[in-house]
Amino acid sequence: MKGNESSMKYLFEPRGVAVIGASQTPGKIGYKVVENIVTAGYAGKVYPINPRGGELLGHTVYARLVDVPGPVDVALVVVPANFAYEAVEQCAGKGVKFVVIISSGFSEVGNVAEERRIAQFARQHGVRIVGPNVFGIYSAAASLNATFGPADVKRGNVAIITQSGAIGIAMIGKTKVEGIGLSAMISVGNKSDVDETDLLEYLAFQDDSKVILMYLEGVKSGERLVEVLKKTTRKKPVVVIKSGRSRRGAQAAASHTGSLAGEDKVFDDVARQCGVIRAESIEEALNWCKFLCDAPMPKGEDCVIITNGGGIGVLTADACEKYGVNLSDEVADLKKTFESVMPSFGSAKNPVDITGGASPEDYDKALGAALQNDNIDAVACLGCQTATFDAALIAEIAEKRYAQYRPVKPIVFSFFGGEEVERSITLLKAQGIPVFPDVYQMTSFLGALYTDYRNKSSAIPEVATADMDVALIDKMVKAARADGRHFLLAHEAQEVMRAAGIMIPQSRIAHNPEEAVRCAAEIGYPVVMKVVSKDIIHKSDAGGVALDLDDEKELLDAYEAILRNCRAYKPDAVIEGIQVDEMIRPGVETIVGARQDSSFGPTVMFGLGGVYVEVLKDIAFRAFPLSREETLNMIGQINSYPLLLGVRGEARKDIDQVANTIIKVGWILRNCAAISDIEVNPLVVYDHGEGVKAVDVRILLRETEEA
Amino acid sequence: MKGNESSMKYLFEPRGVAVIGASQTPGKIGYKVVENIVTAGYAGKVYPINPRGGELLGHTVYARLVDVPGPVDVALVVVPANFAYEAVEQCAGKGVKFVVIISSGFSEVGNVAEERRIAQFARQHGVRIVGPNVFGIYSAAASLNATFGPADVKRGNVAIITQSGAIGIAMIGKTKVEGIGLSAMISVGNKSDVDETDLLEYLAFQDDSKVILMYLEGVKSGERLVEVLKKTTRKKPVVVIKSGRSRRGAQAAASHTGSLAGEDKVFDDVARQCGVIRAESIEEALNWCKFLCDAPMPKGEDCVIITNGGGIGVLTADACEKYGVNLSDEVADLKKTFESVMPSFGSAKNPVDITGGASPEDYDKALGAALQNDNIDAVACLGCQTATFDAALIAEIAEKRYAQYRPVKPIVFSFFGGEEVERSITLLKAQGIPVFPDVYQMTSFLGALYTDYRNKSSAIPEVATADMDVALIDKMVKAARADGRHFLLAHEAQEVMRAAGIMIPQSRIAHNPEEAVRCAAEIGYPVVMKVVSKDIIHKSDAGGVALDLDDEKELLDAYEAILRNCRAYKPDAVIEGIQVDEMIRPGVETIVGARQDSSFGPTVMFGLGGVYVEVLKDIAFRAFPLSREETLNMIGQINSYPLLLGVRGEARKDIDQVANTIIKVGWILRNCAAISDIEVNPLVVYDHGEGVKAVDVRILLRETEEA
Repeated sequence: MKGNESSMKYLFEPRGVAVIGASQTPGKIGYKVVENIVTAGYAGKVYPINPRGGELLGHTVYARLVDVPGPVDVALVVVPANFAYEAVEQCAGKGVKFVVIISSGFSEVGNVAEERRIAQFARQHGVRIVGPNVFGIYSAAASLNATFGPADVKRGNVAIITQSGAIGIAMIGKTKVEGIGLSAMISVGNKSDVDETDLLEYLAFQDDSKVILMYLEGVKSGERLVEVLKKTTRKKPVVVIKSGRSRRGAQAAASHTGSLAGEDKVFDDVARQCGVIRAESIEEALNWCKFLCDAPMPKGEDCVIITNGGGIGVLTADACEKYGVNLSDEVADLKKTFESVMPSFGSAKNPVDITGGASPEDYDKALGAALQNDNIDAVACLGCQTATFDAALIAEIAEKRYAQYRPVKPIVFSFFGGEEVERSITLLKAQGIPVFPDVYQMTSFLGALYTDYRNKSSAIPEVATADMDVALIDKMVKAARADGRHFLLAHEAQEVMRAAGIMIPQSRIAHNPEEAVRCAAEIGYPVVMKVVSKDIIHKSDAGGVALDLDDEKELLDAYEAILRNCRAYKPDAVIEGIQVDEMIRPGVETIVGARQDSSFGPTVMFGLGGVYVEVLKDIAFRAFPLSREETLNMIGQINSYPLLLGVRGEARKDIDQVANTIIKVGWILRNCAAISDIEVNPLVVYDHGEGVKAVDVRILLRETEEA
Repeated sequence: MKGNESSMKYLFEPRGVAVIGASQTPGKIGYKVVENIVTAGYAGKVYPINPRGGELLGHTVYARLVDVPGPVDVALVVVPANFAYEAVEQCAGKGVKFVVIISSGFSEVGNVAEERRIAQFARQHGVRIVGPNVFGIYSAAASLNATFGPADVKRGNVAIITQSGAIGIAMIGKTKVEGIGLSAMISVGNKSDVDETDLLEYLAFQDDSKVILMYLEGVKSGERLVEVLKKTTRKKPVVVIKSGRSRRGAQAAASHTGSLAGEDKVFDDVARQCGVIRAESIEEALNWCKFLCDAPMPKGEDCVIITNGGGIGVLTADACEKYGVNLSDEVADLKKTFESVMPSFGSAKNPVDITGGASPEDYDKALGAALQNDNIDAVACLGCQTATFDAALIAEIAEKRYAQYRPVKPIVFSFFGGEEVERSITLLKAQGIPVFPDVYQMTSFLGALYTDYRNKSSAIPEVATADMDVALIDKMVKAARADGRHFLLAHEAQEVMRAAGIMIPQSRIAHNPEEAVRCAAEIGYPVVMKVVSKDIIHKSDAGGVALDLDDEKELLDAYEAILRNCRAYKPDAVIEGIQVDEMIRPGVETIVGARQDSSFGPTVMFGLGGVYVEVLKDIAFRAFPLSREETLNMIGQINSYPLLLGVRGEARKDIDQVANTIIKVGWILRNCAAISDIEVNPLVVYDHGEGVKAVDVRILLRETEEA
């Protein structure tokens, strides 16, 4: 990562920037980019490149890149798509480190070959490509605005990585309007080389970027993204908007970027696993980013709402449940804290209702009391414009109290009313104080802040490992390959389970009654017996199956009966033996799976069997590998989890062994590149301490052997 | 209703208004209310009342109400709580029609008795009470601002009914800031008499009120509310914010208003049943109300998105799925419509992507084409501020196209970018054009508009009736009462089911083997037999039960065996006979219930049995009575509905008979006031045409016989 970090620095802090395709015509992109670089006061040297030469905005225009005297770390390419390859060749010759291909007309319109040709050439010559089909790059660290968007970017601490150029450019204007300062903004476009993960990895360590906002439509090579996200979210909040949540949206995204969006449920689960704060709308994301830059961390989970209106208090309590914000329940402590402020008819429960008659002084006292109390970790202060509500005075108090506790304790505000209130909101907002016109907006921000808090207070999870006999698994895979199959047979799959130490139903083959008795004794009664014979396909029809054998006598009778039946059924059948199987006791049926996800690489899946998965879609996904805690988290996420905890007087099920199975199944996939899919269905789960059984296992191989 | 309508008119258009407790002291409520009435230019006569007499703001102050010369239709009471009763007495003497008790200090602080005393007196004297604990009333029809909130109310077409005074007052200011005009605003406070239903019933027919917004915390006597809501939503949109969605919020609401919020799930289901457009936040509700007043109705469900950015197009498609907006899929038609506007690399799929290079002219053409096409019922037009996006010009086009199609087809806009874009948004908004800074906001409004459209295009559902032997049901109830029980015994409950024509397992009693054979033939094999004897409690232990009897021979053997076993078990037992029961075939287990809901009166409930209801809370509720269509809707609402449609190759289940059972169970509750709870669990459902069986039925009675 250090390597990436140091090389990426050239992209964000280049010593020299060339614009290949610089133009003298205002309105053209080749002019606008140079103009923006010059206007924003770029710290390095700018070199417009155009065969015609001359001068542009006070800078010499060079006919060829090779003529440029100084080093060029970043070259922006704005020439038409069919001249881009040549431009990249020039860049390689000059030793350019990053070529940002603004030009469009590549894979996004089906011109995949040219894009691939350029990327391949660049890779061979040690040049990195951003794009094509991007709007450029903004980097506050170098005062560099190498985009064709608005010239005037507000400098600050939010870094934006976007997969949509249009949204990116529009965001430059929007962030300025909203008073959100940017440290960097870059679009990844067609991601022919540099992708969101490369950028994220760099920005994670860049001190100016205190919050990272990503707009994504689809993820490729997500395995690295998962790893980088997990590390980044422990350092700073990462807010992600991913479009294509819905079936219809996913179709639209596919038609838009040409990249399949992948299943949103997988994205959502994995994003949460990584500590991502996922926003639904752009508005929500910007609301979070604006204030996350500067907010202090809470010291714990206990929030208190102070309100002069019961109604907005209740709405906020609703919003807290929605956004995962915990309201303090320490009624005695609350009473003690607020008793001096509370009119007799107010409520010292949480929300703390200081009533519609609350004066600015009451607000001041209540806020002061809440902020002083170390048991209160965050304060949400609400105001409805009642007859006694002085919006200007209360804004002053808000400002004072905020300044006083700014580094110590998060305080958020929401005021609701007429013009005076709006004025106060604007005033407070301009000073970076988190104030919102609606309590849901406020609480959504508080929820984001708490996700960040929880990320930062938890260590990067330690990967749970699993020992297994990889050689044996490979042997099974090779046998299938040799057979020309892309799947494993049932007994091969069982062998794989055994090699990984996953509990499977026991099975033996007996060749005479005494052996059958010994097998059954080893397995434990009741058992099931089946004839083993290549000549008898329909074993049941032949009378070659006996179920539910409870003891030695029943076993011996059945042994004899099976032989008799089969001989009668097909006298010339070669009987190789009698299979003695453990009889599967009923338990809770679950499904455990692992597969190579198109977005995230190895992922594991868990759900309850049958209709729970099929009809109710009650499933959880995680990127693999994962820690034991993450695994238990995943199991606990499904709605039907109470069935594993034991409902209606039933015992708790063996959740530990479920977790072990998930981890082992994941490792089988990771250890054997040839395997693309594993599904254990059902994994029957017994009472706590009694384990699980992988009853039926389906293992698929990749289509190509190389993979 | 006509009666209510005509009498309620006095509240909203009073000929004379008195303020009992008028004050000379600015800042006091008794001053503020008079000042607001005078300032707003009330059309009738205003009479300040204060024992000290004199003059106030140019109006004579009367010492006593009785001294007032003209008629007084509304009296506002602002005296302290302990003088309120006397004020109401004065009002009764004067023939006042509505007394609005602004004063607080009643049930909201535990002073229930005084509130009840006043309400009782008023009822006896034909005076209606609004409140106590309200902020007054605003009515545009009479230019009456009889509140202690802001003086300046924007006149318009939104009527607001609120249970929270603080939110109401703050809304006066907020609506003005947002450019939302009000036709009426009233708070219901403690609802000692007039409640939201009374007001809604009037406002439904008041032409000035084109949208009704309600803020609710809890509902009492909701049976009437349901009826009135169903009618009102067919005429005009009713937007409801109900706080207390969450467990925590519901607790807070209970502590705030003293009224239990009821289960939010019930409220949510019933609200939807009634056509209510439920908003989560106040912001969302106001966004909807602002534009619902003036929006044309779409003529169908097919919407088209026009966008210059793929990203915001995808986000909007996501939002459409969330808010129930249908995107047209007529690709051929879309292609034909937009082919002249589309660059080759744009997408004529929906969202229609006119690409980042789209000029104002392209927008104009695309909008024109979409608006002209009769297959397109609504248009969402999006813009990202790219380099070629001229926000001012595009606003002009938006304005022109909106004006052109204003009465014909809904068009909504969302623009995203910097200052120029914000200016255009402000400009368009000021003209009442539905434009939003975020696509989720825009789509949420479009969803609200579509709910309104669907309400208006569907008839008020016709109540499904059910014949039943009410006398027989009453007999069972009386038997239980006579026995001192609050519940029915199993056989009594079965008798009730039979009286209502609900399918139950068949059962006969035989006294000899021949009779048993006859019974079994009537019922149909297989059957179950049980001994009938008061002396044998544990029938299975005694060998008195035989299951799964497939034919006459098995039946006769079992009959003999049961008699033999029981005689051996307890030689002196009196055996009254042998019960022959239908054997319940397995099917899909469901639960059907009916109960007196604390908020809504008779409600019915449906869900799948066992863990589906207990663990997954997969249940649907409806207020009763309901139509057959509403019942089928309710059944289709649960997540596990596919199990009834038949999954994994299974046949469709008998959904019709499930609907019949729900309707019948509902009618049992409605017909028999003594019954408080019915639960059929399980109702086993068989394949289509094969019916259902109410296997186990629990019926509870109200605690008091009167009810």
